[in-house]
Amino acid sequence: MNKIDRLTQHMSRLPGLGPRSAKRAVLHLLAHRPVMRSLASMIAEAERDIRACSTCGNLDDVDPCWICTDPRRDASHLCVVEQVDDLWAVERSGTFSGRYHVLGGVLSAVDGVGPDELGMDRLLARVKGGHVQEVILALSATVEGQATGHYLAEKLKSGQATVSRIAHGVPVGGELNYLDDGTLGAAMLARRAVDRN
Amino acid sequence: MNKIDRLTQHMSRLPGLGPRSAKRAVLHLLAHRPVMRSLASMIAEAERDIRACSTCGNLDDVDPCWICTDPRRDASHLCVVEQVDDLWAVERSGTFSGRYHVLGGVLSAVDGVGPDELGMDRLLARVKGGHVQEVILALSATVEGQATGHYLAEKLKSGQATVSRIAHGVPVGGELNYLDDGTLGAAMLARRAVDRN
Repeated sequence: MNKIDRLTQHMSRLPGLGPRSAKRAVLHLLAHRPVMRSLASMIAEAERDIRACSTCGNLDDVDPCWICTDPRRDASHLCVVEQVDDLWAVERSGTFSGRYHVLGGVLSAVDGVGPDELGMDRLLARVKGGHVQEVILALSATVEGQATGHYLAEKLKSGQATVSRIAHGVPVGGELNYLDDGTLGAAMLARRAVDRN
Repeated sequence: MNKIDRLTQHMSRLPGLGPRSAKRAVLHLLAHRPVMRSLASMIAEAERDIRACSTCGNLDDVDPCWICTDPRRDASHLCVVEQVDDLWAVERSGTFSGRYHVLGGVLSAVDGVGPDELGMDRLLARVKGGHVQEVILALSATVEGQATGHYLAEKLKSGQATVSRIAHGVPVGGELNYLDDGTLGAAMLARRAVDRN
């Protein structure tokens, strides 16, 4: 196996790239040597410098991360997400200006993930220690995600902070016709009055 | 822009990866540090070592490439392709055991690509100098590809080698119904007698 094949095989393990598209990507790189050189050094640099933020679990090349050190971010609102890409998704939505806590997973008896594995104590201490007024659970609408939410809500019940979870409902642009019954039911139960003016 | 964003932006320029899938790939790498380290070094190594074969234009980390040096490959058959990925496609088909010549493009008046830019002289010299019996044109069925084929056929007419081109026709698994008329017409004109036994 030569170096093209080895590199292609390695690239094809990336999510979103199959064997064919990995080959196309490698060929593209070989035809653009400066891009290829800088890609190699960027990956090496990112590997060396990017670490999980010790406060919130976000990934950044500084610790604490850019969100935890931004004075414009409202420390009284804490959004709990499962993974870093969920944090990015919430950021993209542009609807949250508080801070985050990345759990790194969900409670799962099957996979042997308990509160200790997710560092729940660290989160609870953070909520108690800080001036957090609202904890927003932005967890997956899966059984494990909801169980994790219930666990956290239970643990936070006695504290000062209110606990909320993001709404379930019809995706924007979604047709009722194609929606699963569970989501439609949840949307119906969470109906809101329409402003009359 | 931090190092994650810079790397993501760089990755998203690869063919087959958009901004979202690039982000997913970067996150995957950050969660798999050994994979990330070896990917960086593999890209750097490939960039350093992989060059175009000075005989045929194929990409390899040795020169001449593995096809040009393989004694089992029949040097009397030369397959002319536009790009290295076309060579790979022919290799995947498993139907050719000769050697290759990669043009690196097609004749195009619009893009200012003439015979000199494609090193046609080198190809013609290779055919004349060697013991090539058949030159197989495996070029795109586009206007430029076919013009390039005609040019080569014309130039090679006076020589010893026969010139052929790969067949146009119905793709295997293709339905006539969905086929464009040009292809169907070409397939009709190139019809072959069916063996009766």
